[in-house]
Amino acid sequence: MILTKIFDRIMDLGGDFEVIEFRIGKRKKDYSYAKLVVKGRNENHLNLLLEELYRLGAYSPEVNEAKLVPAPADKVLPDGFYSTTSHPTSILINGKWIEVQDQMMDKVIVVDKESNSARCKFINEVKRGDLIVVGEEGIKIKPPERPREGAVLFEFMASKASSEKPSVSIVRQIARDMYEVKVKGGKIAVVAGPAIVHTGAAFSFAKMIRLGYVDALLSGNALAVHDVEYALFGTSLGMNVENGSTSLKGYRNHLAAINEIMKSNSLSEAVKKGVLKKGIMYECIVNEVPFALAGSIRDDGPLPDVITDVVKAQKRYRELLKDVKLVIMLASTLHSIAVGNLLPSTMKVVCVDINPAVTTKLMDRGTAQAAGIVSDVGTFLPLLVDELEKYPIKINK
Amino acid sequence: MILTKIFDRIMDLGGDFEVIEFRIGKRKKDYSYAKLVVKGRNENHLNLLLEELYRLGAYSPEVNEAKLVPAPADKVLPDGFYSTTSHPTSILINGKWIEVQDQMMDKVIVVDKESNSARCKFINEVKRGDLIVVGEEGIKIKPPERPREGAVLFEFMASKASSEKPSVSIVRQIARDMYEVKVKGGKIAVVAGPAIVHTGAAFSFAKMIRLGYVDALLSGNALAVHDVEYALFGTSLGMNVENGSTSLKGYRNHLAAINEIMKSNSLSEAVKKGVLKKGIMYECIVNEVPFALAGSIRDDGPLPDVITDVVKAQKRYRELLKDVKLVIMLASTLHSIAVGNLLPSTMKVVCVDINPAVTTKLMDRGTAQAAGIVSDVGTFLPLLVDELEKYPIKINK
Amino acid sequence: MILTKIFDRIMDLGGDFEVIEFRIGKRKKDYSYAKLVVKGRNENHLNLLLEELYRLGAYSPEVNEAKLVPAPADKVLPDGFYSTTSHPTSILINGKWIEVQDQMMDKVIVVDKESNSARCKFINEVKRGDLIVVGEEGIKIKPPERPREGAVLFEFMASKASSEKPSVSIVRQIARDMYEVKVKGGKIAVVAGPAIVHTGAAFSFAKMIRLGYVDALLSGNALAVHDVEYALFGTSLGMNVENGSTSLKGYRNHLAAINEIMKSNSLSEAVKKGVLKKGIMYECIVNEVPFALAGSIRDDGPLPDVITDVVKAQKRYRELLKDVKLVIMLASTLHSIAVGNLLPSTMKVVCVDINPAVTTKLMDRGTAQAAGIVSDVGTFLPLLVDELEKYPIKINK
Amino acid sequence: MILTKIFDRIMDLGGDFEVIEFRIGKRKKDYSYAKLVVKGRNENHLNLLLEELYRLGAYSPEVNEAKLVPAPADKVLPDGFYSTTSHPTSILINGKWIEVQDQMMDKVIVVDKESNSARCKFINEVKRGDLIVVGEEGIKIKPPERPREGAVLFEFMASKASSEKPSVSIVRQIARDMYEVKVKGGKIAVVAGPAIVHTGAAFSFAKMIRLGYVDALLSGNALAVHDVEYALFGTSLGMNVENGSTSLKGYRNHLAAINEIMKSNSLSEAVKKGVLKKGIMYECIVNEVPFALAGSIRDDGPLPDVITDVVKAQKRYRELLKDVKLVIMLASTLHSIAVGNLLPSTMKVVCVDINPAVTTKLMDRGTAQAAGIVSDVGTFLPLLVDELEKYPIKINK
Repeated sequence: MILTKIFDRIMDLGGDFEVIEFRIGKRKKDYSYAKLVVKGRNENHLNLLLEELYRLGAYSPEVNEAKLVPAPADKVLPDGFYSTTSHPTSILINGKWIEVQDQMMDKVIVVDKESNSARCKFINEVKRGDLIVVGEEGIKIKPPERPREGAVLFEFMASKASSEKPSVSIVRQIARDMYEVKVKGGKIAVVAGPAIVHTGAAFSFAKMIRLGYVDALLSGNALAVHDVEYALFGTSLGMNVENGSTSLKGYRNHLAAINEIMKSNSLSEAVKKGVLKKGIMYECIVNEVPFALAGSIRDDGPLPDVITDVVKAQKRYRELLKDVKLVIMLASTLHSIAVGNLLPSTMKVVCVDINPAVTTKLMDRGTAQAAGIVSDVGTFLPLLVDELEKYPIKINK
Repeated sequence: MILTKIFDRIMDLGGDFEVIEFRIGKRKKDYSYAKLVVKGRNENHLNLLLEELYRLGAYSPEVNEAKLVPAPADKVLPDGFYSTTSHPTSILINGKWIEVQDQMMDKVIVVDKESNSARCKFINEVKRGDLIVVGEEGIKIKPPERPREGAVLFEFMASKASSEKPSVSIVRQIARDMYEVKVKGGKIAVVAGPAIVHTGAAFSFAKMIRLGYVDALLSGNALAVHDVEYALFGTSLGMNVENGSTSLKGYRNHLAAINEIMKSNSLSEAVKKGVLKKGIMYECIVNEVPFALAGSIRDDGPLPDVITDVVKAQKRYRELLKDVKLVIMLASTLHSIAVGNLLPSTMKVVCVDINPAVTTKLMDRGTAQAAGIVSDVGTFLPLLVDELEKYPIKINK
Repeated sequence: MILTKIFDRIMDLGGDFEVIEFRIGKRKKDYSYAKLVVKGRNENHLNLLLEELYRLGAYSPEVNEAKLVPAPADKVLPDGFYSTTSHPTSILINGKWIEVQDQMMDKVIVVDKESNSARCKFINEVKRGDLIVVGEEGIKIKPPERPREGAVLFEFMASKASSEKPSVSIVRQIARDMYEVKVKGGKIAVVAGPAIVHTGAAFSFAKMIRLGYVDALLSGNALAVHDVEYALFGTSLGMNVENGSTSLKGYRNHLAAINEIMKSNSLSEAVKKGVLKKGIMYECIVNEVPFALAGSIRDDGPLPDVITDVVKAQKRYRELLKDVKLVIMLASTLHSIAVGNLLPSTMKVVCVDINPAVTTKLMDRGTAQAAGIVSDVGTFLPLLVDELEKYPIKINK
Repeated sequence: MILTKIFDRIMDLGGDFEVIEFRIGKRKKDYSYAKLVVKGRNENHLNLLLEELYRLGAYSPEVNEAKLVPAPADKVLPDGFYSTTSHPTSILINGKWIEVQDQMMDKVIVVDKESNSARCKFINEVKRGDLIVVGEEGIKIKPPERPREGAVLFEFMASKASSEKPSVSIVRQIARDMYEVKVKGGKIAVVAGPAIVHTGAAFSFAKMIRLGYVDALLSGNALAVHDVEYALFGTSLGMNVENGSTSLKGYRNHLAAINEIMKSNSLSEAVKKGVLKKGIMYECIVNEVPFALAGSIRDDGPLPDVITDVVKAQKRYRELLKDVKLVIMLASTLHSIAVGNLLPSTMKVVCVDINPAVTTKLMDRGTAQAAGIVSDVGTFLPLLVDELEKYPIKINK
């Protein structure tokens, strides 16, 4: 993969290159070899490019010696110090490549001129006068080759799902992405779970619909029931969403919400009659956003609007996904995976869930282009709608 | 536990009661028995109280019959329908208690007058004319007794850790709590992990310190290093925190940040020299908020301010926790558990982590009074600081 | 709750007691008071009982002084040392109750005779000659009262879901429980997810059916499809279950498995025709174990045996749960929660899932009697079946 | 990356190839182009190779038409049906490439001869006589290109960490790997957390040491304290490990275990004196397996053997990792990440943890070669030791 990474990196950094020679290792243990001419915009740019490529495992035929600068004090590094990778590394000293001992990541390389040896040191081990490698010249890295046999065990995992990402900036990027899809006349489908209501984000989601950012809602019975319960009684499963307290006789509200819709025969009738006056389903109905509520075996009720036959529900989902440009999945394992199975690999998908296993499962099932964001919809959605409101009010609907 | 629950519930609802008789079952299978006189503020209030108590397993000696109302239509319930629990239930019909069949939670009870039987029905099974139990009279519930022997297996779990809670209202409550601690002159200690910087919430946390809501910071090397990296280079582990991109040569920033502080010999020297001009550690130093950075075996560097001996670090933590009224733990497993072990059970603790296992672990180790909030600090902290800013600017420092 | 705990603990330990006096605090801040006579089997037993009760917050009217023994060496405690709780604690010294300073859990109490004070010390702070409290006498603990108002925030969590439990002994207990249900002629229902096949435990599960420990299988399309794929091709989603490698053209196997069953019109026809010769579904069919496969919107196929209408599937699940004494849930979120909603609170439930959120969710929805075991079905089931095989072969079917 | 994948796949399958022509797209939107001659061992083998390559996006200059076979019955596919990917796909019909509509994964392609169109169909939508694409000829797939600009958002995640792997076969592979390292005279280091004791696997781990499979143990205070508590009292944090019950006065055992070692001044003295007679630490001492217990701020005690200065502990860890060939990490977040930072990228690492976040964190910090196994050590270790015992008793120590 190294070569691919090198090509990509050159292009990412705005450089140019030509392949002069190219030999691929055909047998299990062969090395591949490629000779490139790399061109930068100017000398500085070229140096930058080369430093990056050295780090990836490339090296120049006309190599300079590794530069050494003494440490100015105990535990203090010279500026420009070279920070190591965990890959086997050699440095060019007095015309000879010597291998660095004790290879570890994020350390510095200290050279012992007498023994002509080099090793990785922790910053807290550095002594005044230690000869530290600086810059990127005279350094050769050998990333591990992809093992070709008997390697099953060590191929299992290459995870990058992580909650350690800058959340507010992610929110900003998703908002911009949504806005851009809409100004170009594209459609956005949202797959949503009941945690949106539980975590107090129903109001934000309703606003997102009102702002025109939702062209189709794909969900199940639970979201609609919780939303109606919240709209009618201010509770979600009997818990007061404003202050987290359990409301008196709140345990009835769930079933009572279902009963109110049963009386009206459908959600849209309930809106027409003035029974349902706010919330997510209300906004869908008055803004004519089509929705599909798929039945599941754990449903209470279910509401008359729910498609209880899962094969029919799948068909309706597919109809709603026609011509969609962006799918946003919010805190819904079952429906997110169902929708993931229906999408081509070219579809952009954003999946927000507090449980990393959901985004992992999406990937395991092939929806590889998903941007998996491990976050809390209860805090994520209010911030997202804040960002969306910063854009010009009238999106192209 | 039923009796305890009943006492508590009466008091919660503002009622009064007197214990007339009280017998406790001494042998494994004995029932306990208590006779109470319950007093409400008026008839309505009393009825409310009684309904709640019936639900908990109490019943009145002068019971009325269960009220039955026919369903007005298929799948539609009469108003005031009784919503079931999963506990064994009997109803009083024609002077006889009959046991409800097919007991399930959140269903309704339908009575068959001919066979003198009753059973739980799903709302979608209800037929027009079905006799549905309404109200709370004539209903007797028998919660399972606490099993007394051989019950090891079924005592393992009684979890309530959950991310399905209304997040924005939680944020509001914590802000109010923090404000109230401060206006009374109380101290707040914050235990913080590096994810605060990774998720882009360093700015919010720095503001929280500036606002005066942090009286002590308990953390480790990583938070300080990431904070310094972000303050000096705008990155966290080389990732641009504003837009999530990997910055060029960003891999060096982590070590370079450490090196800058090494040059100054300490964080406070770095602030004095004008090297460190913003961020979490900067705010602590200029606002004279004491901090303790405890060393850990995974540290890079570590910074000169880090207490590398863990026994000494524990002592310093304890000094900083003196007279503290509220401890807030933000995305830090190791230090949160360490602090949890140092706190008396009377201390208020709020623990915010995206991983439910952290709050669970805190509990397993005895910090039972922790409010565990499963959320994303990257979205949680900005919302919290927004709330804190709504309070009068000058808190009692 | 303290009183309840004391009653329970006395009975657990085989003691006896009589309530002499009992006053309950009626107003928010009142204390409750109870006077008991506690009887042990002999003096030793009584002392044991009393020590436990002191720890829970009880204390004797005729209290002895706290016993003090000097530490024999630095960092070494006298035998019988008292290990602290995190609750506010007082000790009786020279006839006066003095409050222990620096209250922390799992520490020792050191008394300073001169200042007549006591404080918690870490074991590493203990100096030779320090007067350490030993035994349980002369110690009074005051557990925090249940806060009665404004306490919403601090009531959220009381978790005990934990993976830190002795797994092999749990396995043994569940096996015994299953055996005991069966010898009494009881029925066991199993709710199962496809991870059983993915993790290579299909063979163990098939054996469990053959041994007669499964009286009903409640699952969905995915389990059956994966099981058939594994039975026909040795793969699960194209991955060779024996060695974890991806098999050539394995991506087709999933759909090909469905197609083979489609050709036979049903699983039982496929068994009759000799197409399906082993596996979970095969064992159900030849052992006449009834099963229900509920449809879900994410299904591929689905198989002809799947009940695609979720309301009908719910009914079928309920039929299969009739007269069941024990429900075992294995790695299936959706179906486990669906079944949890259908069970009375008296039903014994064991739920095994690697994701702690599943057992937490079960609890949040009311199935409070579940024994939640956070483990890996792929390693759990083989160990369980090993244990089951140790019981006399012919269970009462 | 497509080309790299194609080269790799050919070699994996035992084929050979020559690069005839090779042009790389230099600008952001350019395509890359490569012309290969592929050689198989025989015609069958070549066909197999080609089918795989087509699937990866390659296609042959002399393409045949897509083969169509009518469905034999409703919902039944012809044998050899082509199972789709989620990538945009075209098929060659009557000499023209037509694009497949409704592209979804794991479906079949149905061709409408009249309209000369093709679309993906669910198996349950297939009608008798539908013309279904079979085989792999005449099919062209276009995987999405790696987006080159503004792509930050959609690069976040490429997770494969998963618990849905065949556990028993993984156990077998790890055992074989361990055996192979040992017979070649290699060293194995184990990083271990206290959950090993909690989950009842201490006995298995002790046996693994006795069998000679552990050459160094890297851990912390908690593992040793729990192990000693279990060895002396049969409990772990006061819980009886055999049956999961809480033992009487068990809360003292943790501290009492520490005190017993304090009396002896070290673990090895305690072994010498006959105080410590079994368990993990005991086996290390009698089998002369070196260990390092690194201090952490949450430690109780700590034991005299613990290195409380983290910088010194890091050094000791590094000494123990010298010449190690395989590192096994068992249920220890802190120490696993610490060790991960000390390893070169060429080191083989196996990490077993029930929390997927641990393996994810290991990866995020650069230990990319880790095999992350999401499992329960309590069930995993007994199975692993069972496997290890199957190998010839005397490994080369």
